Amino acid sequence: MKFRINAAILGSTGYTGIELIRLLSFHNKVEIKYLISKSNYGKKISDFYPGLNFKNYPKLVKFSQVIWKEIDVIFLCLPTGESKRIISKIPKNLCIIDLSSDFRFNSLTSGKWVYGIADHSKYFIDYNENEKSETKISNPGCYATSILSPLIPLIKNNFVQTNDIIIDSKSGITGAGKKSVTENLFSEVSNSIKPYKIAEHKHLTEIEKCISNFSNKKNVNVSFTPHVIPINRGILSSIYIKLAKGKNIKNIRNFFEKNNFTFLKILKSNQIPTIKDVIGTNSCFFNIFQDRIKGRIIIISVIDNLIKGAAGQAIQNMNLKYKFKEDEGLNFNPVFP
Amino acid sequence: MKFRINAAILGSTGYTGIELIRLLSFHNKVEIKYLISKSNYGKKISDFYPGLNFKNYPKLVKFSQVIWKEIDVIFLCLPTGESKRIISKIPKNLCIIDLSSDFRFNSLTSGKWVYGIADHSKYFIDYNENEKSETKISNPGCYATSILSPLIPLIKNNFVQTNDIIIDSKSGITGAGKKSVTENLFSEVSNSIKPYKIAEHKHLTEIEKCISNFSNKKNVNVSFTPHVIPINRGILSSIYIKLAKGKNIKNIRNFFEKNNFTFLKILKSNQIPTIKDVIGTNSCFFNIFQDRIKGRIIIISVIDNLIKGAAGQAIQNMNLKYKFKEDEGLNFNPVFP
Amino acid sequence: MKFRINAAILGSTGYTGIELIRLLSFHNKVEIKYLISKSNYGKKISDFYPGLNFKNYPKLVKFSQVIWKEIDVIFLCLPTGESKRIISKIPKNLCIIDLSSDFRFNSLTSGKWVYGIADHSKYFIDYNENEKSETKISNPGCYATSILSPLIPLIKNNFVQTNDIIIDSKSGITGAGKKSVTENLFSEVSNSIKPYKIAEHKHLTEIEKCISNFSNKKNVNVSFTPHVIPINRGILSSIYIKLAKGKNIKNIRNFFEKNNFTFLKILKSNQIPTIKDVIGTNSCFFNIFQDRIKGRIIIISVIDNLIKGAAGQAIQNMNLKYKFKEDEGLNFNPVFP
Amino acid sequence: MKFRINAAILGSTGYTGIELIRLLSFHNKVEIKYLISKSNYGKKISDFYPGLNFKNYPKLVKFSQVIWKEIDVIFLCLPTGESKRIISKIPKNLCIIDLSSDFRFNSLTSGKWVYGIADHSKYFIDYNENEKSETKISNPGCYATSILSPLIPLIKNNFVQTNDIIIDSKSGITGAGKKSVTENLFSEVSNSIKPYKIAEHKHLTEIEKCISNFSNKKNVNVSFTPHVIPINRGILSSIYIKLAKGKNIKNIRNFFEKNNFTFLKILKSNQIPTIKDVIGTNSCFFNIFQDRIKGRIIIISVIDNLIKGAAGQAIQNMNLKYKFKEDEGLNFNPVFP
Repeated sequence: MKFRINAAILGSTGYTGIELIRLLSFHNKVEIKYLISKSNYGKKISDFYPGLNFKNYPKLVKFSQVIWKEIDVIFLCLPTGESKRIISKIPKNLCIIDLSSDFRFNSLTSGKWVYGIADHSKYFIDYNENEKSETKISNPGCYATSILSPLIPLIKNNFVQTNDIIIDSKSGITGAGKKSVTENLFSEVSNSIKPYKIAEHKHLTEIEKCISNFSNKKNVNVSFTPHVIPINRGILSSIYIKLAKGKNIKNIRNFFEKNNFTFLKILKSNQIPTIKDVIGTNSCFFNIFQDRIKGRIIIISVIDNLIKGAAGQAIQNMNLKYKFKEDEGLNFNPVFP
Repeated sequence: MKFRINAAILGSTGYTGIELIRLLSFHNKVEIKYLISKSNYGKKISDFYPGLNFKNYPKLVKFSQVIWKEIDVIFLCLPTGESKRIISKIPKNLCIIDLSSDFRFNSLTSGKWVYGIADHSKYFIDYNENEKSETKISNPGCYATSILSPLIPLIKNNFVQTNDIIIDSKSGITGAGKKSVTENLFSEVSNSIKPYKIAEHKHLTEIEKCISNFSNKKNVNVSFTPHVIPINRGILSSIYIKLAKGKNIKNIRNFFEKNNFTFLKILKSNQIPTIKDVIGTNSCFFNIFQDRIKGRIIIISVIDNLIKGAAGQAIQNMNLKYKFKEDEGLNFNPVFP
Repeated sequence: MKFRINAAILGSTGYTGIELIRLLSFHNKVEIKYLISKSNYGKKISDFYPGLNFKNYPKLVKFSQVIWKEIDVIFLCLPTGESKRIISKIPKNLCIIDLSSDFRFNSLTSGKWVYGIADHSKYFIDYNENEKSETKISNPGCYATSILSPLIPLIKNNFVQTNDIIIDSKSGITGAGKKSVTENLFSEVSNSIKPYKIAEHKHLTEIEKCISNFSNKKNVNVSFTPHVIPINRGILSSIYIKLAKGKNIKNIRNFFEKNNFTFLKILKSNQIPTIKDVIGTNSCFFNIFQDRIKGRIIIISVIDNLIKGAAGQAIQNMNLKYKFKEDEGLNFNPVFP
Repeated sequence: MKFRINAAILGSTGYTGIELIRLLSFHNKVEIKYLISKSNYGKKISDFYPGLNFKNYPKLVKFSQVIWKEIDVIFLCLPTGESKRIISKIPKNLCIIDLSSDFRFNSLTSGKWVYGIADHSKYFIDYNENEKSETKISNPGCYATSILSPLIPLIKNNFVQTNDIIIDSKSGITGAGKKSVTENLFSEVSNSIKPYKIAEHKHLTEIEKCISNFSNKKNVNVSFTPHVIPINRGILSSIYIKLAKGKNIKNIRNFFEKNNFTFLKILKSNQIPTIKDVIGTNSCFFNIFQDRIKGRIIIISVIDNLIKGAAGQAIQNMNLKYKFKEDEGLNFNPVFP
């Protein structure tokens, strides 16, 4: 394993790209060698983010300008469809981490890509055995991360039923990226809340497929309603789910006390997760509450969508691949308030 | 029926009180005769709301200063428990409209109070028959209004099942009133979202009791999780519910096309309700979506919590009682943005 | 003077247009006959604002579809440059009220247009004498309204000097209209504040020209820095200005006590104007404070930019022209919170 | 100079305290040994900030429980007046950094305290000469930091006049601390802007005194108007000031190109500073613009009030005192968006 590695970022000027640049500034083992941009090459990243005026980052370059042997890992922070278009041009020996949805379903089915839900990576790949092989990691969706992080162990260990899972998620607007459309304007987003793509969001099939993989052919039925709320960062998912027969919340709490996850944490029994507790961190905090409907529990789960839901989880995946400390460059207190 | 009536407001300086004062300024049949305040009598309402500096409102007075024969209707905008304490001192011939939770459960059981869910008032009282009798109206809770307004006709007409109703509500912070506590500070509320009183909010029993009244002894099981979001006004409720056997969404849409409600409106099939569409109005907008889980539908419902969820519905109840036009003083375009 | 008049709105789907539609719903003397839209004709206004779903408004039509004899007054709510392009096609006998900047400078110089700073309209036109003539009113800019409303009487009556006026204004983002550009996105506007067009905003020349008209050839030097703050509505202007020799704040307060303005109001000496006190109203509230620099005073002035700074002032101008009550359809309590 | 030092924080649960704890987590030379709290001792910091649930911080202790020889530096993050009350009980050999206003004026006059405007510390103390002596550093006010950081070199080097300085500052609400009072509630702060303590804020005398120290007995006249805007973090100050005779903006730009300051940075000539460019950083970004009034310039300056205006500057002062790298633990990219 190398002591230090070099990284390239493709799609540097979006909200995910700029967050990845920020987070890597805390990482002791990685240097950003290339910032690649399809439309903005030749310019500087500080032309788009004046806050980086006095930092030393490489200029934005074209994809074709990259000298591939200089880099080890490439992060793809591209709009939907763009990763698929460019993937064949990236040398096979690189570690590729794709933050888009382009290969997610593939990663949950065929196995060429690894589904990078990092706190549960052991279920998807053994990096000790796969050390030399090419590694292509598909970062989960931000909603999916907030939902599957607590759900996977519950399903894997038969604590819950999979046939009537109702998920109501609330996300900050950065989840929609930096698109200049009316619905993302301050005047439209502020002072409101808006459900969208009800029962048809693309993360829904990702969530269902992943749950299916862990549930041994049991019936999987998922309802998923995302809402945009007037904040920049953060997702809170409220999951209404049935306990498996004979199980109770105490069983689940015991499980999480015995099994440690690096960034996935259950709170104390009286604590309600809120977005402000995880902003600026790579944590997924969750807690479980008895529902008033018999047999049902309520799981509340929170993440920072730009970190745990995107750039941070990508780094965590890189750490796992290169056997750096899992929390290298990711061990933050929340930014509050 | 009198041409004009006189009103008193008890608890004038809170967010509900000030909204009631504002809304009554649009009403052609009511004059505000008394603004009553326990702790602030002697002052002017503009001492608390400088925006009212150049308006002519009566000074704040003590309860004991009211000359009762001068007024017809009294609105109680008091903190929990205060209405119960004072109710016996209000003359019986007055129309009393209580905006607190003090008599809500009573209004759903004993019958001395009327449960004032105004668009469905006919189920609770016939004002033609009760014209001369004393009228005590208990305004529903703001969450309950957003939820029960679309649900009552669905349950009454057997479109849905009552045994597995999951409700995820999101409310602006004014629902918490004007209390100076840490959790209501700008620094704590902004940039976050926070569930609270999970499965134990007091509106839950109100909702369950009301549903029970309409469901003919069927099993009623309700899950209710309220969340605070960083906005001032508005509630959006996402209701996950099962269709009754043999029913579908089209049946429901047909029903609402044939049955008109003054302020309760179903949107066109492709429209998703958002809070910004009802801010500043007395409307409850909702729509119904097919869920991915077979047999389930998703109802999205929105109100302005200070209007339809409080002061506006109180006025609507008054209009019904006095047989004014039901939308007198309440017919607004939304304030946008 | 007619009892009722008919209006057309050109540019109905922008933030100013929709606010004008809302405000006119409170006006007893005007009916909206036409909603005109260059690009959206054939659709309904509720296609853009679902909050208007259940209101009866005329369909959007093309300019060429208007039957001119049916209307009395036309409001132009168009982007910069569009009013100039279309003005020659509007029949001369109509009362035209232009809310853009296209004719503002003209209205301060040539006299064919009236500069519609409504609380001071008497300085610009005598509607009693001009009753029958054609009337073209140019609505002042929103910043200019917040600044000139308190300044005009101070300058006209020689209370202040005009040679060193420093104005620092803060505006909600609706001032930028409904443009889908990066800088108007929620992610960019929220949690920040941004000065722009420092010393070169187009309202600056409007302000200077107007001040010059009232200052008898004295030196006029104005510094003007607008800032965008993360709110939707409202402008607060902080004006740093020198008292004229021998004058003091008391003189000024005396003046405003003796001279009444319908919507321009000085607060009590200890009250500091805030935006929330005027949101939803046509008021301009201001107050005057002794500065620490000798001879200087600080004027703080607030308006709702969409009402007093746009649609409300347009209606006030119409009221003046048609000799309706000046506050007809404009007498609101603030919407709070 | 020691390789590592131990720190105590007095007043750990306020917004400044929690930010100091967060920032010190990035510092390689300091360990937090004590978190001291007058009213909350015995509890854990994570009882107040659940985001710190899984971090290892010492329990909150009483002041009297501190074993003083174990610590090198103490940070006082206390409400006004509390530092003065406790100062005599802190051993003299400690480095004391006070973040309150208690000793600021003293630090600008008597010399027992050092005025800790860190980018200009050389003007206040030579840490090489004062190495062994006791060090008491008074951190400047947050407003004062945003204003004096760019002004001190301009005044010291005679680029500007001091007799007519008009400062209009806009601050996030965290500047008011974590006080549960009506005016800090979300409902009151959101959707508004509010000037306060016009011409009488306590930072005004601090600013004036500091300017006087650098201006050789010239007349010093400062106007200062702070405003609260609906954001959590950040201050933007707009400074209207006169150039000294014979000076121009180019002279000033040349000066800043030749003289480097660690965290104080002038932007390129066409760039306008915004708060979002410095949030999460210890930077003070500023720029200078030609005003329309002849002889005047406009300086726009931005900081993160909790970092450069409080906890970050305190750490920078500590770095200077202990001759750590000046930006040790403080070299951040902005958190955006």
